[in-house]
Amino acid sequence: MLEERNSDQTTSVRDSEAFFAPLRGHLRLLDEFLVAQVNEFEPAVRDLVRYTFAHRGKRLRPALLFYAGWTDGLPSADLVRAAAVVELVHLATLIHDDILDEAALRHNSLTVAAKYGQHPAVLLGDALFAQALKLASEFSTTEVCRLVSVATRQVCSGEICQTFDRDNASLSLEQYFRIIRLKTAELFEVSCRLGAGLISPDAGYIDACALYGRHLGVAYQIFDDISDFSGDEASIGKTLGTDLASGKFTLPTLLYLRRLAPAEATTLAAALVKREITPVRLAALMTDAGVPAECFTVFYAEVDKAEAAIAAYSATPAVGRLLELSGYVRERISGLNFT
Amino acid sequence: MLEERNSDQTTSVRDSEAFFAPLRGHLRLLDEFLVAQVNEFEPAVRDLVRYTFAHRGKRLRPALLFYAGWTDGLPSADLVRAAAVVELVHLATLIHDDILDEAALRHNSLTVAAKYGQHPAVLLGDALFAQALKLASEFSTTEVCRLVSVATRQVCSGEICQTFDRDNASLSLEQYFRIIRLKTAELFEVSCRLGAGLISPDAGYIDACALYGRHLGVAYQIFDDISDFSGDEASIGKTLGTDLASGKFTLPTLLYLRRLAPAEATTLAAALVKREITPVRLAALMTDAGVPAECFTVFYAEVDKAEAAIAAYSATPAVGRLLELSGYVRERISGLNFT
Repeated sequence: MLEERNSDQTTSVRDSEAFFAPLRGHLRLLDEFLVAQVNEFEPAVRDLVRYTFAHRGKRLRPALLFYAGWTDGLPSADLVRAAAVVELVHLATLIHDDILDEAALRHNSLTVAAKYGQHPAVLLGDALFAQALKLASEFSTTEVCRLVSVATRQVCSGEICQTFDRDNASLSLEQYFRIIRLKTAELFEVSCRLGAGLISPDAGYIDACALYGRHLGVAYQIFDDISDFSGDEASIGKTLGTDLASGKFTLPTLLYLRRLAPAEATTLAAALVKREITPVRLAALMTDAGVPAECFTVFYAEVDKAEAAIAAYSATPAVGRLLELSGYVRERISGLNFT
Repeated sequence: MLEERNSDQTTSVRDSEAFFAPLRGHLRLLDEFLVAQVNEFEPAVRDLVRYTFAHRGKRLRPALLFYAGWTDGLPSADLVRAAAVVELVHLATLIHDDILDEAALRHNSLTVAAKYGQHPAVLLGDALFAQALKLASEFSTTEVCRLVSVATRQVCSGEICQTFDRDNASLSLEQYFRIIRLKTAELFEVSCRLGAGLISPDAGYIDACALYGRHLGVAYQIFDDISDFSGDEASIGKTLGTDLASGKFTLPTLLYLRRLAPAEATTLAAALVKREITPVRLAALMTDAGVPAECFTVFYAEVDKAEAAIAAYSATPAVGRLLELSGYVRERISGLNFT
């Protein structure tokens, strides 16, 4: 589950509109498809579903799916349905995420939990997830159900691991990467696999796209974790350090702790657990120590791996689109004020 | 989502062991199958999954599925897998239910939320539901995924409706029946449909079993709602009036309100919303007014409808088993101290 609250409010170098322009028709079809789902729910639930659809984010997972499944013209009905499946799973996880984080706002609107209450929010997340699987069952084979249910189980498992590792300053980098691969990269991967599989029977192409999705997902979560330390609260108007406030030790902090002498690291970890250090102060310490550059290196290495995974297929229009998308993610990180 | 906390602790006329004896081998296979699922989850999550499986209830939905799919000898692998699917969905909904109700105990053990925290409990429910759908995707067609995902969406929708209708004393009987059909009878119905469909291609038989399941589910929820008013707290050791305490207006209360003059009903409703009337006091008032007998009439009418639905197939061993099961549900209600 991606922490989009911050990253969505980060000023990027170029307007994201330009990047998503080729998808305008695709996303319109997706939105129409989602709106048509509202009436599948009980009357008393429809307002909540409508509200969720009306306050959505960038639809990155559908974008990945549409690009991995890119063909000339508008997407097939199967592609639109598959895009709806991954978006519904994502929306369901965001709703539950906001309950756990006690977040009141997402995309500058009230979260479902804040607007309708925690109980309906838990149940609405469940119902949206169920509807995602109902749509997955409308394909001719059980493949979509299998891929989506496994990915969802892994996303939740990653979130559980992260919950248990709150305030665990001895979290290893391996554990950190494991968590973000589960909580974010699994759904990126399955989005690419579904898109690719719906336009091609070539297992090599499908696996390449899936691997691209996995690495891009890891990169995107790293971007998101970095953005929690970047920028100037007053001018950008976003809250910094939400991870720090909830005891989540992410890449910047973990890399900084590794640069300190053991005794210093222990002292810092204890202060972090006690919330005695502000995110602005920690960001300043990290900047002095050169942590931002190290974070960017790790981030770019993941984007490189993503792009390398599909390099053999770079002549296809779909892979051309995927390379544009990873280029967009690359550009966004350079807009962060964290150096 | 069935409120099993109370009903499980109600003394029944006969030991439930006797009723479930024919299923002993089936339920052992189910338990072994579930335990084998533990390793499908991430290592950090396995203890929670194991705990959930170790503190389960009566496995009524698997029992329905096994009886509707009854054949000589032990059940097929498909029947066991389908039973695991409905049980996992049920367990997931119970975990979320206990969070919403802030329940600390279920089946005399700590709830997942009380033992591991609310955050892991929300996510574990999600992961169990995802695993249910992953198992559903292992059938040769998408039918099981479709049936289970739709039923789950409806269960959640019913719960959302009930949440919105808390403290709504003008809830109609129609609305009450609609809610319990969604929140409880949907999963009973799909359990019967799956069991029947796995042993028979006869659409008439499958639909008959499904209809049996639906009516039995409504009857069972009525039983559960009545049991919230029945018995003597001190001697039975259960908490009465949990529905009343959370503002849920169930069959006994709704029938009682209908017997009162409008002004009296308004006064009582206001007192109930303010929690000014104890469940013991309300139960006494209802007894004086003859409400218990009316509740039992409604309950028996649903069991009758369930049995009528499968009467045409009463010569088959499966339907013989289903009739035993509804007989068991009939007997349990006569053990309630609410007359």
